[in-house]
Amino acid sequence: MKASFYNCDKTFTLGACTPVEPTAGDVRVRVAYCGLCGTDLHVYHGHMDSRVGCERIIGHEMSGTVEAVASDVNDISVGDRIVVRPLDPCRECPACRSGNSHICHNLRFLGLDADGALQQNWTVPRHTVHRLPPGVSLKHAALVEPTAVACHDVKRSRLEAGEDALVIGAGPIGILIAMVARQRGAKVCLSEINPRRLEIARSLGFDTINSAVEDTDGVIRDRTGGKGADVIFEVSGSQAGVDCMTAAAAARCRIVMVAIHAEKPRIDLFQFFWREIELLGARVYDEEDFDTAIALIASGAIDCETVITNVQQLDRVGETLADLSRNPSALKSLIQVSEEAA
Amino acid sequence: MKASFYNCDKTFTLGACTPVEPTAGDVRVRVAYCGLCGTDLHVYHGHMDSRVGCERIIGHEMSGTVEAVASDVNDISVGDRIVVRPLDPCRECPACRSGNSHICHNLRFLGLDADGALQQNWTVPRHTVHRLPPGVSLKHAALVEPTAVACHDVKRSRLEAGEDALVIGAGPIGILIAMVARQRGAKVCLSEINPRRLEIARSLGFDTINSAVEDTDGVIRDRTGGKGADVIFEVSGSQAGVDCMTAAAAARCRIVMVAIHAEKPRIDLFQFFWREIELLGARVYDEEDFDTAIALIASGAIDCETVITNVQQLDRVGETLADLSRNPSALKSLIQVSEEAA
Repeated sequence: MKASFYNCDKTFTLGACTPVEPTAGDVRVRVAYCGLCGTDLHVYHGHMDSRVGCERIIGHEMSGTVEAVASDVNDISVGDRIVVRPLDPCRECPACRSGNSHICHNLRFLGLDADGALQQNWTVPRHTVHRLPPGVSLKHAALVEPTAVACHDVKRSRLEAGEDALVIGAGPIGILIAMVARQRGAKVCLSEINPRRLEIARSLGFDTINSAVEDTDGVIRDRTGGKGADVIFEVSGSQAGVDCMTAAAAARCRIVMVAIHAEKPRIDLFQFFWREIELLGARVYDEEDFDTAIALIASGAIDCETVITNVQQLDRVGETLADLSRNPSALKSLIQVSEEAA
Repeated sequence: MKASFYNCDKTFTLGACTPVEPTAGDVRVRVAYCGLCGTDLHVYHGHMDSRVGCERIIGHEMSGTVEAVASDVNDISVGDRIVVRPLDPCRECPACRSGNSHICHNLRFLGLDADGALQQNWTVPRHTVHRLPPGVSLKHAALVEPTAVACHDVKRSRLEAGEDALVIGAGPIGILIAMVARQRGAKVCLSEINPRRLEIARSLGFDTINSAVEDTDGVIRDRTGGKGADVIFEVSGSQAGVDCMTAAAAARCRIVMVAIHAEKPRIDLFQFFWREIELLGARVYDEEDFDTAIALIASGAIDCETVITNVQQLDRVGETLADLSRNPSALKSLIQVSEEAA
């Protein structure tokens, strides 16, 4: 079988790889599609070499079909169409013991700390597998993982119907958060500087603010009668986004920190005091978020066709990541890892 | 009657002042004691001149006895021993309408935006008045307002019995937060750089960390089996405190931002993501916090005698604030505004 190996230096090599026989508690999946995300871009740029090494198979936004199960796995069957929640927690650390195994101190993230889904036959623990309902295509199911991120972010925000939500940054995760928030009954506005992404957001029916030319917090205050946004998702990872999040916040606003800030930005803590703002860190997802994401995609609440802007073959991982680096106007790129099973 | 007027340029002048006759909804109080706090120090240093002006009577941590009531006030009587919750909200803005009148967009803070308690006869709206139970002395009752701040901060943290709490900064508010958190059943540790304040915290039975010479987050991780603090109160207002708050945080830690940061510090947002930390802004208090503070002081859970390190007369406001600027080893200084009623 074939796999795409990350060999450092912005290089991915297509190579042969022996399928791993599932041992106790494992299942083997024929991977159909695997999405590429911001974390994969970080790997491509070499920022995570010390963590992933130079022989790693990455990829964690996948869909596929079960092709083998260990003898002790009796609740999943060959032929089941599935997605993998790529988290393997230790179950012993303080985070695991307090019911937060998704932020396990020793979390093994499949596709970073262990081999991932950019291989045709992927062996994973049974506990990571979620079965798909009949109506969901494997192509759309590759969006379950990023949609689960969005579901987790919206859950963290305690968003209620009728509230004003601002999403700062209209990349794939920002757009998915906006869709999940709208489905929850929020009035959603996206701010973004990239014209193509603004256009996509508008085509999906969202209010938008071009923060390259408009004063985002002024527009938000005007639109909310001076109140500000009840919930803000900071997805831009920029100092400008961090400045905007405190400026546009209503009293008692909940700000969800979705972006991964490698630098330490300056934050207007006075506004946290003055308006009793909350900042909520959010990382990956739990089982429930995966189930919610599958249900939302099955229901049609997530416009998968608009989000998936590109599908490439397994020998094009490096080129696709290079394109994503150059051209952020695309939204989600998928790699078709195997032909779909008949 | 006498009052202490703030005349800008670090100057307070004792002067005569005509008592204001209570009109509709008002009561007049003979002020017994008034504490001085960090906000009063900001006024002293001229940082708030544009807000308070140069003829203002400041002071908002008070206790006293009712000496007159308007004809329409029938649930409070002359002779009642009381404290004032110095907040006069507009009741019309989005914050008021959402049940958060303590962070009203147009909040009139008595003692800053209107005259305060450093006058012998103070006229205030009835809705700001809380009656004291018999066992509480007027001297101790001057601590109700800062204790209500502490109660609000602890309430915001959702602290539960048995949790590990770290208080960064052992000034009056830090010490009061530690007392309230201990009374709630938390394991409390205070970090501080001032030797005298560390000594006071230890004399009150608290675990302490001298963060001038010890690595606070390392000590916290050692003491909690690698977990970190479940709840952190940042009361220092320093970049070092802000660095410590993310470093010492457990997974899903709730950090309450108590200090008022005039500068915008750099914050390690990556840790917010990695451990799903929450940052909760906290400002003043609501009615319930005042009632809780009165009950805690009445119960003896707050060691008022240790917190009150100094009592001065009304002609000594400027000198007392100057001393507080020079010598932060003192905890709370009170001004005795009037002789106590017999």
